[in-house]
Amino acid sequence: MSPLPPNSRTARPPLGVGMVGHSFMGRVHSHAWRSVNAFFDLPLQVDLRVVAGRDAARVGAAADRLGWAESTTDWRELLDRDDIALIDICTQGSVHAEIAVAALEAGKHVLCEKPLANTPAEAEAMARAAADAAERGVLAMVGFNYRRVPALSLARALVAEGRIGTVRHVRARYLQDWIVDPEHPLVWRLVREQAGSGALGDIGAHIIDLAEFLTGDHITGVSAITETFIHKRPLGTAQSGIGAQVADTPSDAEAAAPDASAAGIGTVTVDDAAIFLARTSGGALATFEATRFATGRKNALSIELNGSRGSVAFDFEAMNDLWFHDLDEPAATSGFRRITVTEPTHPYTGAWWPPGHGLGYEHSFTHQARDLIDAIANGTTPRPSFEDGLRVQRVLAAVEASATDNSRWTPVEV
Amino acid sequence: MSPLPPNSRTARPPLGVGMVGHSFMGRVHSHAWRSVNAFFDLPLQVDLRVVAGRDAARVGAAADRLGWAESTTDWRELLDRDDIALIDICTQGSVHAEIAVAALEAGKHVLCEKPLANTPAEAEAMARAAADAAERGVLAMVGFNYRRVPALSLARALVAEGRIGTVRHVRARYLQDWIVDPEHPLVWRLVREQAGSGALGDIGAHIIDLAEFLTGDHITGVSAITETFIHKRPLGTAQSGIGAQVADTPSDAEAAAPDASAAGIGTVTVDDAAIFLARTSGGALATFEATRFATGRKNALSIELNGSRGSVAFDFEAMNDLWFHDLDEPAATSGFRRITVTEPTHPYTGAWWPPGHGLGYEHSFTHQARDLIDAIANGTTPRPSFEDGLRVQRVLAAVEASATDNSRWTPVEV
Amino acid sequence: MSPLPPNSRTARPPLGVGMVGHSFMGRVHSHAWRSVNAFFDLPLQVDLRVVAGRDAARVGAAADRLGWAESTTDWRELLDRDDIALIDICTQGSVHAEIAVAALEAGKHVLCEKPLANTPAEAEAMARAAADAAERGVLAMVGFNYRRVPALSLARALVAEGRIGTVRHVRARYLQDWIVDPEHPLVWRLVREQAGSGALGDIGAHIIDLAEFLTGDHITGVSAITETFIHKRPLGTAQSGIGAQVADTPSDAEAAAPDASAAGIGTVTVDDAAIFLARTSGGALATFEATRFATGRKNALSIELNGSRGSVAFDFEAMNDLWFHDLDEPAATSGFRRITVTEPTHPYTGAWWPPGHGLGYEHSFTHQARDLIDAIANGTTPRPSFEDGLRVQRVLAAVEASATDNSRWTPVEV
Amino acid sequence: MSPLPPNSRTARPPLGVGMVGHSFMGRVHSHAWRSVNAFFDLPLQVDLRVVAGRDAARVGAAADRLGWAESTTDWRELLDRDDIALIDICTQGSVHAEIAVAALEAGKHVLCEKPLANTPAEAEAMARAAADAAERGVLAMVGFNYRRVPALSLARALVAEGRIGTVRHVRARYLQDWIVDPEHPLVWRLVREQAGSGALGDIGAHIIDLAEFLTGDHITGVSAITETFIHKRPLGTAQSGIGAQVADTPSDAEAAAPDASAAGIGTVTVDDAAIFLARTSGGALATFEATRFATGRKNALSIELNGSRGSVAFDFEAMNDLWFHDLDEPAATSGFRRITVTEPTHPYTGAWWPPGHGLGYEHSFTHQARDLIDAIANGTTPRPSFEDGLRVQRVLAAVEASATDNSRWTPVEV
Repeated sequence: MSPLPPNSRTARPPLGVGMVGHSFMGRVHSHAWRSVNAFFDLPLQVDLRVVAGRDAARVGAAADRLGWAESTTDWRELLDRDDIALIDICTQGSVHAEIAVAALEAGKHVLCEKPLANTPAEAEAMARAAADAAERGVLAMVGFNYRRVPALSLARALVAEGRIGTVRHVRARYLQDWIVDPEHPLVWRLVREQAGSGALGDIGAHIIDLAEFLTGDHITGVSAITETFIHKRPLGTAQSGIGAQVADTPSDAEAAAPDASAAGIGTVTVDDAAIFLARTSGGALATFEATRFATGRKNALSIELNGSRGSVAFDFEAMNDLWFHDLDEPAATSGFRRITVTEPTHPYTGAWWPPGHGLGYEHSFTHQARDLIDAIANGTTPRPSFEDGLRVQRVLAAVEASATDNSRWTPVEV
Repeated sequence: MSPLPPNSRTARPPLGVGMVGHSFMGRVHSHAWRSVNAFFDLPLQVDLRVVAGRDAARVGAAADRLGWAESTTDWRELLDRDDIALIDICTQGSVHAEIAVAALEAGKHVLCEKPLANTPAEAEAMARAAADAAERGVLAMVGFNYRRVPALSLARALVAEGRIGTVRHVRARYLQDWIVDPEHPLVWRLVREQAGSGALGDIGAHIIDLAEFLTGDHITGVSAITETFIHKRPLGTAQSGIGAQVADTPSDAEAAAPDASAAGIGTVTVDDAAIFLARTSGGALATFEATRFATGRKNALSIELNGSRGSVAFDFEAMNDLWFHDLDEPAATSGFRRITVTEPTHPYTGAWWPPGHGLGYEHSFTHQARDLIDAIANGTTPRPSFEDGLRVQRVLAAVEASATDNSRWTPVEV
Repeated sequence: MSPLPPNSRTARPPLGVGMVGHSFMGRVHSHAWRSVNAFFDLPLQVDLRVVAGRDAARVGAAADRLGWAESTTDWRELLDRDDIALIDICTQGSVHAEIAVAALEAGKHVLCEKPLANTPAEAEAMARAAADAAERGVLAMVGFNYRRVPALSLARALVAEGRIGTVRHVRARYLQDWIVDPEHPLVWRLVREQAGSGALGDIGAHIIDLAEFLTGDHITGVSAITETFIHKRPLGTAQSGIGAQVADTPSDAEAAAPDASAAGIGTVTVDDAAIFLARTSGGALATFEATRFATGRKNALSIELNGSRGSVAFDFEAMNDLWFHDLDEPAATSGFRRITVTEPTHPYTGAWWPPGHGLGYEHSFTHQARDLIDAIANGTTPRPSFEDGLRVQRVLAAVEASATDNSRWTPVEV
Repeated sequence: MSPLPPNSRTARPPLGVGMVGHSFMGRVHSHAWRSVNAFFDLPLQVDLRVVAGRDAARVGAAADRLGWAESTTDWRELLDRDDIALIDICTQGSVHAEIAVAALEAGKHVLCEKPLANTPAEAEAMARAAADAAERGVLAMVGFNYRRVPALSLARALVAEGRIGTVRHVRARYLQDWIVDPEHPLVWRLVREQAGSGALGDIGAHIIDLAEFLTGDHITGVSAITETFIHKRPLGTAQSGIGAQVADTPSDAEAAAPDASAAGIGTVTVDDAAIFLARTSGGALATFEATRFATGRKNALSIELNGSRGSVAFDFEAMNDLWFHDLDEPAATSGFRRITVTEPTHPYTGAWWPPGHGLGYEHSFTHQARDLIDAIANGTTPRPSFEDGLRVQRVLAAVEASATDNSRWTPVEV
């Protein structure tokens, strides 16, 4: 048997990771950390050191299953470990700020799930902490993973190259249907104290970020409606685990709302749906819709940009495709092209399989891990930054302010 | 040779039609009048009597080409003809009211293209005239033809039967791109005095009507943005006829704006795009977008409704399909069904070709003609009525009011 | 009122048409003759003179409904009429040869529905008659209407321009499902004496012709399987008219098989499905499938060509789209483009509606009528010619020969 | 920090794996072995022990990157290791038989990539060895991974439940385009001695297996054409790695053909494309096409089954969708349903992400690993078995025999 060659796992410097939370997001992040070195040639070797959670038995089982060397019920222990250089925050939003600020102050790089926080004030504190940390070479990144779906990375590249010209329209929707049934229990995502907001922050945050990412512009103001269609729901945990898993916000425990174990009825305190109009700094008009009541739509994130020279369109239901329209083509042979984004020349995809062998949801997280590792090794600033996350938070806040004031036009705070 | 059988064209009572306008809408209406008796078994035989237009040579050529027996440059002549029972108004919106009111007062049934008028005041006068006429058995209908695309007729039937339950979301867009080029001339559709509004009234009116038609509910208020991306355009007529034809409003002369013949630059005085949020009387949230700047989208009218028991979705780019999701299906085999709406049991389609032999754009007008003839023969009230058209007009006015007042929430006048 | 202008219907020379058969094909042909002058600027004005059928009452009613001036039960009367210049044969295949040859000999131009005949011998006689007639300036055309679906006309233009290079693969299918139910009655299309063959000649003929049309090459040999899944069916007419209408072969009377009125069971004597491999004179490999047992597929004609420089793909279920892949594009932005074939620069579509306002099934027949009128006026040879139809007939015969001889490779007779 | 809980990685019995080959298939198999325990609750814990390859440096680097504890240049060493219970064969087909037979005789379970071998004789020897081994509790499985794409697993379940009735048609295609360029070098996959056959065995094998898997029937005979479009190609390795990676057959070294390093031209000795007709034991007609010359199609595996009660259709370009048509639905609301196969009740998908969060190509391999581990733990027979693989091999042989004998109908040896 041969020994490991020079450029081996043991030879590369390790990047010790500590993760907080081990539910939906924790599972997908773990997969990314486990996989990234097998597909990308990186200067650091990921070491899955410790996972933190609230319940000892559950976090222990998660460590076992997800590949972490150790587990703990106290996330603060991670801050003191010399073998941990990066804290990955996969909890529900209500504790993002506390953990992230502490980690950055302790000199740990931070990857924090989205939305950055539950309030602009928290997000501001986090962005300040990130700015301070950056001066010490400590980096922070927020997990808007969809930026790194290859088709969307390619869309950004085309827009940045001017292939669609000046953007006039953004059309973004994120549609789910997991709480259409009025008997679906009052899980924590339906409780404001824990989730911050409902569909708005959970999935609306993604399309806000994508709109800014793809255009390279900022959202300057909004006019909004939010709605809660079903106000009372039974307490109790989601039987099939669907309720717990379906939404897209991280949480370290997919616990139901307070008193969930008691029989009875509780009140939904977040939005079921949010729709809003916006303008961008680049002069585009934008429409947004985030809802958990689009019956039959499971995870239908779609976004289209129309520009003066072309258009791009994406639908997560066919996540390996980007549709591109180039106005420079002769009209007789012009049309939206279905680009299967799996070529070696496409973003990220050369690391995976041959053309046409499509990727899945979790790959965007592996790409996120890749880019963050690269940034850490090279000392560059990873994006989306906490500043980017803060801007999304301010859009979320503007949406809520507009919705509670009769759809009044509400500028986004700068 | 055999003589014509008893139930012959000559044996059936005639329905004399006079049409005002002979451009895009005039062409498609003529086709409907020429074709309807060949496909539907109707109690009246259409007689294409007279077409009216402004220019003698052009209207004469149109009569020749489109199959009308006579032509005139004075539409008022149609009012005095005993052999004309129905006036079909295919002009630009600015003269709808004058013609329609006069025709109804003269005891002629009226089919009027959409939008009903250029202002709510005009539309109100028309609705009053229609109400008065109805007491005398004289009927009026507004030409929201998309209601009679079979897939949308079927969608309405499914919604009315309760197949999708309570509607929570309406998502409607009408996207075109024919004036993306800044060199496209300032045709009449870009001039407020003639067109009333831009994309809003021209194509936005269709999706407003469809939203009300499909839900069976009314739009109660809106928050809106309108935008004109290109303010100055060269005068002159559209070279290729595209500019003249592409928009969807009728006109009796696709004349360019005033002074179009002069060299120079003119000002666009209507919106290029309109986006708005709305609520319906049934409790749904709705988003609307109408634009002529969606590069690559030619006539992309799409609408989706999500309800408590299911969903329907339609896209005119595949106009023979209706997508239907039924929440009652077991999850394991559940999904949006692509219903090819060409079965004998589907609305209108049994009259045409065998299953799978799809229809085109103009068939909706033939179906409109069919239903109007049926209503005239049976003395029933055709829909969409002028009252329906007035309601759309009020929504258009509310959109403009909201857009000019900073997206302020604007209730729709009842 | 103005008189008709100089270039009027009455001023243009008439083209008197006599049609034999008035069922499915007769209906769609009539529509084409009625409509063609309204959309295309042609040197001749169509005059729908006489329709011939077997039953006096039925043909009289058809004349009334479809817009013919007169009707007759003897198609030979058409040959003697000076006011008839063109005979349009919409009968079942078993009488094509007799009528076509007689008409050509009588100096009438002929449009004959497909397949040209029921046997190669008949088709040869027809092709000879057409060749003789051509010397006297009398023209003949066979009705492979799909060539004139604009998307397929565009596909041919792209191939002819070399945009896809050398064709390596042809993949053609025509799928229907109207006799999946074993209780569907034994209509005439299931009886060899009347229909010649089953799915093979009825719909397979279309894709054979399209393969030759699109490639510009000939099919040189085949290896085939045919199958009859259900051998016994109840006698009787199709209750809903579906059975009678669904198939794509013309017939002057959608009569059921002999003894259909008697209760009982009859034998299906044609194929339900045919599949075959082929080679083309250009070196391509081709696969064909024609079936009436593709459950859920209503009229799914699809064809794709792959060449050394690109590909084209078409599916009649979305008949206004052509998909085009251009290998010259950079890989990063390469993909099949969905060309919505409704631009003014596309074949035929400039005559109809603005971009994006799609056409339907029957438009291909109107385009066929347009091109035939043009050919008659200009004395040019219309395509597809009877020679083209004969070649298809020989492919059909080779398929049957191969299928009955254990899929033996069978060259197509030249 | 908490210790690992009782049901921990260390507590579960290990399953030591040794893998031969580390190219495309080796990479994807490694990913499956690394990931399977994180997503599925299994009785055994995979231990990636040793990877074998021909070149010491390359196999060492692969071990490092892919997560194997050790590497070797002699696959026979794996047979003697007590800590290896399973040999995973990811080499090119020419050495499958030798390795598999030796491993089975050594008492190791075997997973062997497809096609099972390069000749029926080899496959027969392997099937005999598997049968012998089975008596000693040693298991063998062949890697037709597409069976475990969830949408195809669901398709099989629906067919097995009788939801589509008796299958009448199978329509299978596997289209790629990676050697359209005549300058693409003569890689080993284009050389008969190494690859056995070309598109036929590489990708055609998959659709043959799927046809048998989905129908539950066997292919009884074929009529075939194979073709080599480009006979001479430059020697040399594929520059971009595309040539090496794109094809779907495993290989332990993506070496070019003999003399590849020498400048010059070599001869392609395998098929570029294969098309064939078939009949199944269940009475269905089937068409197959496998090609590397379908310009623009990257990995377009599609298959459709039409039955007496319904249909299923799948296209790998949208691999998370299954299309299902149920003839029992009323015609008015009938249509192909797009089932997004990501529900907890669907095969495998409950282990991954919430509904709508689609999977990618490699997941099918993880599912394969899961089922094989389960079979090993439970002593059940895994499918597809070597017997299944042998049957595919015999179909491949029949295709080649038919193609070389003028498409003669060729029964598949039983």
